[in-house]
Amino acid sequence: MSFSLGFVDEENMSMFTDLYELTMCASYFDNKRFEAATFDLFIRRLPPNRSYFLFAGLEQVLLFLEKVRFKEEHIDFLKKQGFKDEFLDYLRNFKFTGEVWSIPEGTIVFPNESLIRVTAPIIEAQLIETFILNTVNLQTTIATKASRVVSAAKGRPVIEFGLRREHGTDAGMKVARCSYMAGCNGTSNVLAGMKYGIPTFGTMAHSFVMLFEREIDSFRAFVKTFPDKSTLLIDTFDDIKGAEKAAIVAKELEERGFKLGGVRLDSGDLAELSKKVRELLDRNGLKYVKIFASGDLDEYKVEELLIEGAKIDAFGVGTKMGTSEDRPYVDIIYKLCERMNEKGEFSPIMKLSKGKATLPGRKQVFRFKDERSNFVKDVIALEDEKINGEPLLVKVMEKGKIVYDLPSLEEIRKRALENLSKLPEKYKKLKGAPRYPVELSLRLKKLMKELRGKLKKVEVLNPT
Amino acid sequence: MSFSLGFVDEENMSMFTDLYELTMCASYFDNKRFEAATFDLFIRRLPPNRSYFLFAGLEQVLLFLEKVRFKEEHIDFLKKQGFKDEFLDYLRNFKFTGEVWSIPEGTIVFPNESLIRVTAPIIEAQLIETFILNTVNLQTTIATKASRVVSAAKGRPVIEFGLRREHGTDAGMKVARCSYMAGCNGTSNVLAGMKYGIPTFGTMAHSFVMLFEREIDSFRAFVKTFPDKSTLLIDTFDDIKGAEKAAIVAKELEERGFKLGGVRLDSGDLAELSKKVRELLDRNGLKYVKIFASGDLDEYKVEELLIEGAKIDAFGVGTKMGTSEDRPYVDIIYKLCERMNEKGEFSPIMKLSKGKATLPGRKQVFRFKDERSNFVKDVIALEDEKINGEPLLVKVMEKGKIVYDLPSLEEIRKRALENLSKLPEKYKKLKGAPRYPVELSLRLKKLMKELRGKLKKVEVLNPT
Repeated sequence: MSFSLGFVDEENMSMFTDLYELTMCASYFDNKRFEAATFDLFIRRLPPNRSYFLFAGLEQVLLFLEKVRFKEEHIDFLKKQGFKDEFLDYLRNFKFTGEVWSIPEGTIVFPNESLIRVTAPIIEAQLIETFILNTVNLQTTIATKASRVVSAAKGRPVIEFGLRREHGTDAGMKVARCSYMAGCNGTSNVLAGMKYGIPTFGTMAHSFVMLFEREIDSFRAFVKTFPDKSTLLIDTFDDIKGAEKAAIVAKELEERGFKLGGVRLDSGDLAELSKKVRELLDRNGLKYVKIFASGDLDEYKVEELLIEGAKIDAFGVGTKMGTSEDRPYVDIIYKLCERMNEKGEFSPIMKLSKGKATLPGRKQVFRFKDERSNFVKDVIALEDEKINGEPLLVKVMEKGKIVYDLPSLEEIRKRALENLSKLPEKYKKLKGAPRYPVELSLRLKKLMKELRGKLKKVEVLNPT
Repeated sequence: MSFSLGFVDEENMSMFTDLYELTMCASYFDNKRFEAATFDLFIRRLPPNRSYFLFAGLEQVLLFLEKVRFKEEHIDFLKKQGFKDEFLDYLRNFKFTGEVWSIPEGTIVFPNESLIRVTAPIIEAQLIETFILNTVNLQTTIATKASRVVSAAKGRPVIEFGLRREHGTDAGMKVARCSYMAGCNGTSNVLAGMKYGIPTFGTMAHSFVMLFEREIDSFRAFVKTFPDKSTLLIDTFDDIKGAEKAAIVAKELEERGFKLGGVRLDSGDLAELSKKVRELLDRNGLKYVKIFASGDLDEYKVEELLIEGAKIDAFGVGTKMGTSEDRPYVDIIYKLCERMNEKGEFSPIMKLSKGKATLPGRKQVFRFKDERSNFVKDVIALEDEKINGEPLLVKVMEKGKIVYDLPSLEEIRKRALENLSKLPEKYKKLKGAPRYPVELSLRLKKLMKELRGKLKKVEVLNPT
């Protein structure tokens, strides 16, 4: 084995999969099981303190499905792992040819709702599972977390600052994307700025202050380079003394016709300090200088700071948002819900595992809204049911080709902010929010009862 | 902006950085600050329930440092962001030319110990910060978590199964690498098997069972393809009935001269079920069939299962290990600790921020061991101090070139297991472990006192 940066590229993403996807597919192949089947991507339950999810990751799923292929290098490796030649020949020509329905990115969703629904020959539908779960789990986890931080900041800008502690390079990019989608105003991640067009922000680090003989020298040096947009970090030695020096430098800038952008607090009691610093700046005629706060922030801390009357104009939120620290995943799964039988008809199926039963059949999610378009309740129903609400799943892929106008990140962000504004406030409480009503249609409930009875009979009472 | 899978490659890793690294460097450049400086990478404190860290990520840091460059596309983007031409010319020719010392990967380390020490012209040393933090944070977080799971399993194999909920593609690769390093026996990640040579494992999913008319048909189909190494998932409908069917299939396999590998439990009360399934298998003369357990496992759950007498032979551990769920990051930072002054001499520096003060100067970490090589205590000292213990930091890079025989993953794993075996048991308790002693040398303490006094005087008492 050679030494490696370990980055995954488009060429290798087919192999970014759990081995069992390949062993199952080899066995489907071996047993000549090529019938179509439908899988549902959904989230099993709400994590503690979450009351909704902001769905994200569809764009990468669709690009993956269009492009996923196996190369000779992969085939060689799999051969050495004991896979048979016939199956490997199949993989050589593998393409995804199925149909996909999905809820659009930036939509608020709830547990058990089908987010992405894949219908394809069983081997194709199975083989793509791991990548889909991986990218939607990360992006939905982060978009949801970030939307809570944005909500807690009550209109004040939030900048995503977590690149250094997000989980690797791919997470660094996706977190910037999803937190911007969820309402953050920008990111510190320069590559995300370049690739996704997200506004980038940056101030200075303690090292910059420390490299100079005196703190005030570092401030003067920095504003020399960026006279019109500097934010000075003032807590390296003493916040208040740092603020005094920043005020002096701001006055020097005024004489040159420039204005200091802001000061940054990164440690200590941010509520208390921000009030003192605000007072100091105002006293010096520097009402326009913004106070920017960072340091171990999350939605709970932001809410608390604002309740304490902190004089903070914008927040830099890093690690805890970028890793979704209090819950770094969602219980997302990808489950078989129907298969084609010998007659060529689709028949619904379900799983009974304790605490992990699934909803059978091909489903649609209907959203009910009031006269002001506020969300009232959702109903999960079978696809062909006539239900009054707005159907959320739309067709996004046909015969393996994207048949959906992929929205830009700005458009997805717009949808997310619109969705968040239409979710009644009570559901956005950071803790102890009530449960948003999600009902199952009568037909779906009836189907589940029937199947449960039949499966119990066949698999449990009379199993062999 | 175009639509994107958002993967980061070697070509773009220079831009995978916080904007402030670039703004600071632009200002260093503008202010003609080219002097050398030294930065320390270290972890500020132990997270709850952690008593040590398993250091990981050096290989990727060194490969990054050797290869990081800026391309014209990057320069163009930065120009649009307002960076000046002179600085951009500097970036066009940017190379890392510094000296790096590091503790080897797979070493047990503690808070405040220098893990990687970088000495280079200030712009170079600053610009590389974000990537280093990103990769070492992820890998050290996961290696540490995984070592706890392995320790809790008390010699039973642990397979890393978390790919679907790890944070993106890069995390998927690095988690496989670091959990293997920490003692896991393999991964479900096929690409990690191919790129890193890690043994891969896979069983079957519920969908495989559900696709067939009857559960037992799915078992027969699977062992047809893999007669010598199948593990059957038995909880899709009812664990015990599933086990009965697996026993029948095992007997059928015996007649063909094969042996069933194992059965997998993935839900319910794993301790209780495993005992019943073990009894059932033994009763059928299937003592050789292993019981494999998975489903929401982590070190706490594994320890609990074994205390309850679970009859489990191996564990598949996924999401909670692969995201380090109870603490998805370490408080890792990269701090300036000395700078070259006008006379060309290095002088130590420190930061005083509340609760975030740093250790000044170029340091070495010395480990004291008893006669059986068990770890007794560490001492953090200035580099040129004569201390009796074993120095942990070694030179790994000189003038921007790797001068260190990069160990293979197997070698790193060996070091990690050796280190873990030499850390006294009491420090490996999953909760409430005592603090391993890490002392500061007298000279270092004296230096800190002096600097603190001087900085208080200059920056706080008489600040401007």
